[in-house]
Amino acid sequence: MNRYNRNIMPTLLILSSDADEYEKLIKSAQLPNLEFTGETEFCDIVLGEPKLIRDMLPRLPSLKWVQAIYAGVERLMDSDLRRDYILTNARGVFGELMSEYVFGYLLVHEKKIFERQRAQQAKQWDRAESGVLRGKTLGLLGVGSIGSYLAGTAKHFGMAVHGFTRESESCADVDIYFHNPDILKFGEGLDYLVSVLPRTDDTNKLVNASLFDALPSHAIFLNVGRGNAVDEAALVTALNEGKIAAAVLDVTENEPLPEDHPFWTTPNLLLSFHTSAISYPENIAQLFIENYHLYLEGKPLKYQVDFERGY
Amino acid sequence: MNRYNRNIMPTLLILSSDADEYEKLIKSAQLPNLEFTGETEFCDIVLGEPKLIRDMLPRLPSLKWVQAIYAGVERLMDSDLRRDYILTNARGVFGELMSEYVFGYLLVHEKKIFERQRAQQAKQWDRAESGVLRGKTLGLLGVGSIGSYLAGTAKHFGMAVHGFTRESESCADVDIYFHNPDILKFGEGLDYLVSVLPRTDDTNKLVNASLFDALPSHAIFLNVGRGNAVDEAALVTALNEGKIAAAVLDVTENEPLPEDHPFWTTPNLLLSFHTSAISYPENIAQLFIENYHLYLEGKPLKYQVDFERGY
Repeated sequence: MNRYNRNIMPTLLILSSDADEYEKLIKSAQLPNLEFTGETEFCDIVLGEPKLIRDMLPRLPSLKWVQAIYAGVERLMDSDLRRDYILTNARGVFGELMSEYVFGYLLVHEKKIFERQRAQQAKQWDRAESGVLRGKTLGLLGVGSIGSYLAGTAKHFGMAVHGFTRESESCADVDIYFHNPDILKFGEGLDYLVSVLPRTDDTNKLVNASLFDALPSHAIFLNVGRGNAVDEAALVTALNEGKIAAAVLDVTENEPLPEDHPFWTTPNLLLSFHTSAISYPENIAQLFIENYHLYLEGKPLKYQVDFERGY
Repeated sequence: MNRYNRNIMPTLLILSSDADEYEKLIKSAQLPNLEFTGETEFCDIVLGEPKLIRDMLPRLPSLKWVQAIYAGVERLMDSDLRRDYILTNARGVFGELMSEYVFGYLLVHEKKIFERQRAQQAKQWDRAESGVLRGKTLGLLGVGSIGSYLAGTAKHFGMAVHGFTRESESCADVDIYFHNPDILKFGEGLDYLVSVLPRTDDTNKLVNASLFDALPSHAIFLNVGRGNAVDEAALVTALNEGKIAAAVLDVTENEPLPEDHPFWTTPNLLLSFHTSAISYPENIAQLFIENYHLYLEGKPLKYQVDFERGY
């Protein structure tokens, strides 16, 4: 291949620990004109992990489009990083996984599954009454593609859904929307609070002592978004003082969680180590293939990130 | 009230530990002509628990209709008991509860919720990959009102649904139906097997060593029907030998489970002590009210039990 070809053929660099699998999946789609490269110089398209891409940004003179394989792209958002390319993230693929995760933990709580295991270990026929999802109210902090999917599952289980968003009110499965400054009013009416917020400057510590005070004491808080949204010291206090019943954290401010962090042993706090939704190369490759066709046609790409907004 | 009135007014006896609540709920509906009684002699309608009704059957000379507050009415099925009345059971109210229970336990398994709790206790940031419901196959032993509801939830989660029934094929959410003698063929293709079978002569030990052999070794078996459907010794062997991955039993042949029963300590077996779906008086009272109007009008009642079939 000569220099001339390189300039007119879209050239893809894959930056992921699953690079081989991505290459195989994308090659099998036989996309028109697409070249694969291991070099950065002539590459105009990058598919990969935001962390790896961030390190490579200064070495990509021809960069036009980055397809991130995660939903969270905060590592590419710092204001001193270049923004002269189109960034698309992975959306529409995590809702199902998040829904399985969130409702799994809600049901563990309502069906008293840990308590029943302990009763079994003690050989006690303990018929403590289970709780139910039906009729309960789920509050979503953030109603994008993941939040909307969670709302749909909540509706399947006969629940009410409240949503807190900056301004959007587009999900039909949300019964009532709240916006700033009504976050405490939003919290008061909830049985379960789920944060799916991305890491941005606006989401720092949105879940704080005031919100824990506003939530009913039987409420459960789940975080499947990003750890920055939570005032971690306030959460430890809220659980120790019984201001809320339980918390389930898939994400924390620092990951892995430092060994001396109180979360490891805070009562009624469950950790799941950022496993709620992993990127399956089959799903992400499909998204890339779809966007590649739009790219070739010069059309707007799907799931484009707004650098100003941060998601 | 005189004897004459008693003969023409429908008279209800409530036999339940929640009798006061049932009376209050039904009285608030102000049903036409309905009398409440504590006596058995002139009573033509009984609402209550099958066990209590069974003991009272010889003392109900005017009995015309029994509304059971449970789905399982096997205690009224013995061939030496009278069958000269209409028996209706509680259906259409347990599907939602059973669905919360079944999918709660499936998600505990797939999301490795017990394992993650152990990792947290050991302060290990363990990112073992979660499994997913999407794409898995749920097998239903019995597809009545509860099975149909489970099928609907499985579809919400993107699963395939196979159904094993005597002959019915009426649930649109079931992708493939199996009937006798194809129960092993049915078992081979499943990731999860859920029995919602009632206790009848035909359901005894339908879930036995042959079926455990047929199931894939990663399969999970759940029983939310009745304990008689399971060969309990074969289940202990299947779990000890790893022929299936796990079992979740809400029901057992004898309840409470005898203290020396191997189920208490069989590996990968979880017990939940018949708590998966309790009868909520609000739901059952609603069913009674609906049926009472049909009774007054001389129309066929909803959810009538076939004494020959046993459910």
